[in-house]
Amino acid sequence: MNADAPGASTAETFVLHAQLAADCFVVGDTALCRLLLLNDAQYPWFVLVPRRFGLLEIYELPDDEQLLLQRESVHLGRTLMQLFDGDKLNVAALGNVVPQLHLHHIVRKIDDAAWPAPVWGRKPAQPYAAHARAERIERVQAAFGDWLKPATG
Amino acid sequence: MNADAPGASTAETFVLHAQLAADCFVVGDTALCRLLLLNDAQYPWFVLVPRRFGLLEIYELPDDEQLLLQRESVHLGRTLMQLFDGDKLNVAALGNVVPQLHLHHIVRKIDDAAWPAPVWGRKPAQPYAAHARAERIERVQAAFGDWLKPATG
Repeated sequence: MNADAPGASTAETFVLHAQLAADCFVVGDTALCRLLLLNDAQYPWFVLVPRRFGLLEIYELPDDEQLLLQRESVHLGRTLMQLFDGDKLNVAALGNVVPQLHLHHIVRKIDDAAWPAPVWGRKPAQPYAAHARAERIERVQAAFGDWLKPATG
Repeated sequence: MNADAPGASTAETFVLHAQLAADCFVVGDTALCRLLLLNDAQYPWFVLVPRRFGLLEIYELPDDEQLLLQRESVHLGRTLMQLFDGDKLNVAALGNVVPQLHLHHIVRKIDDAAWPAPVWGRKPAQPYAAHARAERIERVQAAFGDWLKPATG
C-alpha cells in the first residue's frame, strides 16, 4: 500500500493498541473516544480510548479535550450504572501494561467475582459467548444513542 | 456538644470517612476537595476527596463541580508526575471498600513494589517515618501553591 495514498496510516494516526484490540470488542466511537467492551463476561466492563496518537496521560490532552473526556466518562458511567443496576462504579486510568491512555469503566455488584477487590488480576477472564456479547453491545449502543457512531479507521 | 451550636456538625456536613482518616494524612484543601497522602511510603500516593456530603460517584456532582474535580485531578496528576519523576500515573475512583467518593492518584515507577500490577492489595503498606512524611507533604504543599489551603472543618 502506498503510504501517501488518501486514508493511509501515517506515523501520527490513532491506532488502537494491539493488546486492547485483542482483549476487547469495539462498541463504537464517541466524539473523542473509541468505546470498547472488555471480553470478560464476569463484569460489565467498558473502556474509553481517546482517538489521539501517542497519548499516555489525561493531562496531555488539550483543555477542551480533557473536558470532553470527562463529559463522555460521566455519561458512560451513569448510563452503565442504570443499564446494569450497579452497586458501585469503578473508573480508572492505569496503563502500567498498556500505556496508550484508556479509561476503564466497570460496573461492580456486591456479589460479583472479585468484590470488594479491584478486578485487575483477580480472576481469569471469562470470554463472552457470541450471543451474550452481541446482546450486551446492542444494549449499550441503544442506550448511548447519538453519543455513539460506528467506529471508523 | 450542642448539635445546634454554630459550627457543629449536621447530618449534611462533609465528614471524611473514618477509614480514609485512619489510612491517610491531610495535606490541605483545594477549592473542591480535601487532599490526602496515603500512609504507604512505597509510592507517592495521594487522594482527592470532594468535600460534599453523601457523595458516592463522580456523576452525582453538579456539572460545574465535575469540571472542577477534573481540573483539580489533572493539576494534581501533572504536578505529582513532575515532582516525583513518575513513569506512569494511575488515577482511579473505586470505592468498593470506602464508598465515599475519593480519587486515587498514584505515581508509578517501573521499579516500584507492585509494578506493573495495580497497587491495591499487593503489598502491605509501609508507613512513613515522621520526617519522611513531613518532607513529602511540604514538597507537595509548596508545589501546589495557591491551589491548596489549610484544611478546615
